[in-house]
Amino acid sequence: MFKGKVTLYPTPLGNISDPIYKFYKDEYQLKESDIYVVESLKNFKTFMKNVYGDIKIDENKIYILNKNSRKRDINEIIDQLHMHKVALLSDAGTPTISDPGRYIVRAAHKQNLEVEIAIATSSIIASLACSGLNGENFEYVGYLPIDKKERISKIQELVDSSAEKKQTKIMIETPYRNIHLWKDLMNFLPHYADLSISVDIYGDNSIIKTASVDDWNKMKWPLLKDRNAVFLFSTNPR
Amino acid sequence: MFKGKVTLYPTPLGNISDPIYKFYKDEYQLKESDIYVVESLKNFKTFMKNVYGDIKIDENKIYILNKNSRKRDINEIIDQLHMHKVALLSDAGTPTISDPGRYIVRAAHKQNLEVEIAIATSSIIASLACSGLNGENFEYVGYLPIDKKERISKIQELVDSSAEKKQTKIMIETPYRNIHLWKDLMNFLPHYADLSISVDIYGDNSIIKTASVDDWNKMKWPLLKDRNAVFLFSTNPR
Repeated sequence: MFKGKVTLYPTPLGNISDPIYKFYKDEYQLKESDIYVVESLKNFKTFMKNVYGDIKIDENKIYILNKNSRKRDINEIIDQLHMHKVALLSDAGTPTISDPGRYIVRAAHKQNLEVEIAIATSSIIASLACSGLNGENFEYVGYLPIDKKERISKIQELVDSSAEKKQTKIMIETPYRNIHLWKDLMNFLPHYADLSISVDIYGDNSIIKTASVDDWNKMKWPLLKDRNAVFLFSTNPR
Repeated sequence: MFKGKVTLYPTPLGNISDPIYKFYKDEYQLKESDIYVVESLKNFKTFMKNVYGDIKIDENKIYILNKNSRKRDINEIIDQLHMHKVALLSDAGTPTISDPGRYIVRAAHKQNLEVEIAIATSSIIASLACSGLNGENFEYVGYLPIDKKERISKIQELVDSSAEKKQTKIMIETPYRNIHLWKDLMNFLPHYADLSISVDIYGDNSIIKTASVDDWNKMKWPLLKDRNAVFLFSTNPR
């Protein structure tokens, strides 16, 4: 008996050449959902237009869920899950990884509903795989603190822990602040550390590059401003 | 000027219904590679047959790279990268994450070759997204120690660190040993911990389920024997 189902639909990180679009072109289930839980209306509409061309989704079916959502908003969505086909999307990338979508998923499990993901895509793992750094043991820490002193102290903590656990460290940054994180990594990682960067991974000017801090210092630095980037480093000897 | 390129080709985790197959059907670059670096000949041939039907790849183009490869074997491959289109595949999943493919990728970066990934797929992130557990901060630790005492001690260390860092912990196990890891997690996680499992994620009998240890104890345990599974837990309060 159908009790309800939550399907996660990962979305591309900005680039129309992302292979996910190829996948979604033949994906009909998405447009037949009963409810859409999305991070922002604008990005959802752009995504649906890129996939299906001109398509109208009844706005009554759309719920907004993002970092501004209050507990009451989230509970309102949770009350709708039962008996419905629910589509969960974020603005970019895999829903729930960096947005409150996970509260919907957790509630679905509590209600014994089905949970599935349309395609298992991830720029984090793609970046890790393309870095050549240790993929058998890694820590994803998301955003580092904005405060410079706290950020540097966090970097130093990660440097020690990377060496101790032979672990790759992975982080992201808000695109307009990328350059600050890059500079702090260049300044506060040991000179022998491997630093890797993946920028606009399916874009025309994508950058996927790993080098030691020493070697980065001999090269032109990557153009990071306002671009989607994943930062990775490792301080353990290879 | 073309200097050489390494392309990572993630492969499905066993299930012919995996959406990756749909993607590869129209992917022609793979069969035109100059060199194939693969984990095992048998699995590579099966994969190519599933994608392209009857296809013959010149065996002189195929290099085997797996945990049994010696440094000399790896260096022999590295010497071939320059000026070639190199395809890197593992037996299942994203190459380099749990196999020595990363040495090839690291060498490609050193030689300033291009590195790319055909499609950014990952069962680890898919499992995390479908778990409803914290995706903004997680640690992937791969395989736990085989020795029971060491394994339990590692679980206890992860329990403490999950609570302290509010971090989701992710691990995998060799399919035939899944049930031992499951039992140890059920016995040594706190009763309030959230334990999640993703089994054969695109298979006919896939299991994607998160519940507290208390709640798992009230349910039928998942069928794990000889299946591809990702284990996740979190001990921090939601």
